[in-house]
Order: sequence, then structure tokens, then C-alpha cells
Amino acid sequence: MKIAVLGTGVVGKTISSKLIELGHEVKMGSRTNPNEKATEWVASVGAKASQGTFAEAAAFGEIIFNCTKGDATLDVLKLAGEKNMNGKILIDISNPLDFSKGFPPTLSICNTDSLGEIIQRTYPEVKVVKTLNTMTCALMVNASLVPGDHTVFVSGNDADAKAEVKKMLASFGWKEKNTIDVGDITTSRGTEQVLPLWVRLYGSFGTANFNFHIAR
Amino acid sequence: MKIAVLGTGVVGKTISSKLIELGHEVKMGSRTNPNEKATEWVASVGAKASQGTFAEAAAFGEIIFNCTKGDATLDVLKLAGEKNMNGKILIDISNPLDFSKGFPPTLSICNTDSLGEIIQRTYPEVKVVKTLNTMTCALMVNASLVPGDHTVFVSGNDADAKAEVKKMLASFGWKEKNTIDVGDITTSRGTEQVLPLWVRLYGSFGTANFNFHIAR
Repeated sequence: MKIAVLGTGVVGKTISSKLIELGHEVKMGSRTNPNEKATEWVASVGAKASQGTFAEAAAFGEIIFNCTKGDATLDVLKLAGEKNMNGKILIDISNPLDFSKGFPPTLSICNTDSLGEIIQRTYPEVKVVKTLNTMTCALMVNASLVPGDHTVFVSGNDADAKAEVKKMLASFGWKEKNTIDVGDITTSRGTEQVLPLWVRLYGSFGTANFNFHIAR
Repeated sequence: MKIAVLGTGVVGKTISSKLIELGHEVKMGSRTNPNEKATEWVASVGAKASQGTFAEAAAFGEIIFNCTKGDATLDVLKLAGEKNMNGKILIDISNPLDFSKGFPPTLSICNTDSLGEIIQRTYPEVKVVKTLNTMTCALMVNASLVPGDHTVFVSGNDADAKAEVKKMLASFGWKEKNTIDVGDITTSRGTEQVLPLWVRLYGSFGTANFNFHIAR
């Protein structure tokens, strides 16, 4: 499948490399083409990898991963261009973390709204699916990094889009029983709001190799 | 041990009954003495149970459980009286849920503050320990209600108070390995903010018999 990954940071690179490993064609999007980090990534993974502007990547992808930081996401999606995203699945991994006052971060959006919802409202023809935002990126693409059962949450309004994303998650190693469809995109509010606890646990454990699980 | 339980709702009754079962003396506190619900509870559990006003209960307890709804908590603690609580452990189970706009609720305090922190700031001589607020009350006092490993979080500034509370949690069936000390009372922000996800999962599962677990 042709996939766009927006973002050249550690999340974008981790997702992109896994997608290449799974046989997909990936165009990594950034503000500029060429981009130093994207060039480096493309060189490291070979033929099925390419780079482009956010707009070029979004136009290329049948599915689009948003791997940008929450405070940049809305700007980036504007650059990606509504017409390049309409009708497509946007897998949103971003979190509205605000580090402007240091650690621990607060949320720039929360409680009565969420970044997932804002994206969906801004781009009503895009099938936004929020997922993978509650864990470290190495775990996103390798569920077995943390032993035992643990959970990946999925939120979105479009059932078919969520079914497609669940297939993608399965290819990342996520068992069906550990993939919880929380509900429509308003449930992003819930999954984004677990970040403050995640961040404190990270500080306490000294490692990001842990995950939320819903025991039942 | 002599224990005060503030609140006559389902959380207060569940905690109180468990404490009686464990051999403690419990005074259930409410706005009035006598109180219809407290009278009913006392009659149902026998000799070691009693009732009183919030102030009478707080004066009686060596440890105080706050089992009131978040929107009533600060009023209730004012009625309980600072001098009746000073130097004691206050186990805070409350959540600042705001149901004024229906379901799902939002949080009346979040992100840059928490109810746990406000209580601690308001009563600096009280040893506030936030715990048990991330699950349904039947599970609070019977960890095995949900199979397998799952987590109870503990937040507070006083290490000795947290150690005492962990002993209490162990008597409720919580294994040491599943009792996570998240840090000081500011980590209440994290545990209170998982409620929006909890509430949506509850809506989705149709049962409250589930719990967060931190897999690692």
C-alpha cells in the first residue's frame, strides 16, 4: 500500500521503517523537500522509501499517518492540504502536550475537546482514527516489546476506517483482544487525557517500556 | 483501628462495610446525625459501626476516607473541620466529575490542578493520599473481582502515610506488585484524568468490572 507519514521525528521514523519492513511504499512528509532527516531515513531503508513535502506525501498516500507533535499538527495538516486528504484514513498518533512550562507537560487541549476531534471537525471528509498515542513509539510497532497483554485504543467515527486501521495494528503485532475500539472520535478525549499519567509513570519508572492495559 | 468514612453513598457504604469486615471500628459521616442512609447501614453491620456528622466522624477517625462526590468534597471537608483532620491520613477517593451537562461527564478540575492537590493545599497539615479513584467501588475492596493483575495508583506527599495506605490496600486484596506509587500529590492530576477514558470504556463494555493495569 502507498502510505504517507507526516513527520520526520522519532515517531515518524519508527512508523515509516516498520511500514517499509511490512512491504509498503512510504513517502515521508516534511516542511521542505528535500529535508535532511527524511533524506537520511530514505537512504537507510532503500527503494520503497521516498520523501516529499507534507502536501506531496498526503497526495501520495492511500493512508496518512500523522506523526507530528501536537502543537504542530494543525499547521502541518493545513500544509498537507484538505484535497490531498479527503476521503482517506488519517491515523492520528499526536498528543496535545504543552512543554512550554517544562516537565511534566500539561495538555493544550483537553476535557471538553481533543486534538482528534478538532482534526475531524476541521476535515470532515477525512476519516480520522486516533490510535497508538498512549505509548512510546518503539512499542507502537512492536507490541511484544512489553510482555503480556496490554492495550491499544482506537477512536473514530467511521467503522470501515477503524476496521482498516485494526488490520494495520495487527500487522504491528497487536492482538485483536488487546485492540479496544473505545467509540467515536470524541473518545480521543479520554485517550489523550491519559498522557499526564503516562508521563509521570515514565518519570517514575525511568523507562518508556510500559503500557496501559484494560484488565477485565 | 478507628476509621471515619465521609459519605453515605455506594462508595462510602462499600468501603465502610469492608472496613467492618476487617475488624475496624467505623463512623460513617454525613451532613446530619442521624442520617437515614447511615442509620440503615449501621443497622446492617452491627456493633463496630456508628454514625455522626462529618465533624464527629473526622474527630473519631485515626484515618479518614473521603468517599464523597467530587463536587461536594470541599464543602464536606470544611464541615469535617480542619482541627479534626490535622495530622491524620485522608484517603481521597473522590473525582471531580461534572455531570451537569449529562453523560459523558467532564472534569471540573483538571490539567493544571487536581482535586487531590486542592485538598492538600487547603489542609497542609493533613496527609492526603489519593488512591482507588480509578475503579468501581466493588473492585476497590475486592481486587480479585477482576481477574489477573491490575493496578491501584497511590499519590501523596508523605511517605509514611503512603506506606500506611498501602497496608490498607493490601487488606483489600491489592498485591504489592500491583500497587503503584506514582509520586507526590501532583500526580493526582494524572489519575483523576483517566476518568474520562474509564467512563467511555464503562459505556462501551456495559459493566464497571474492569480496571487499568500498567503492563511492564
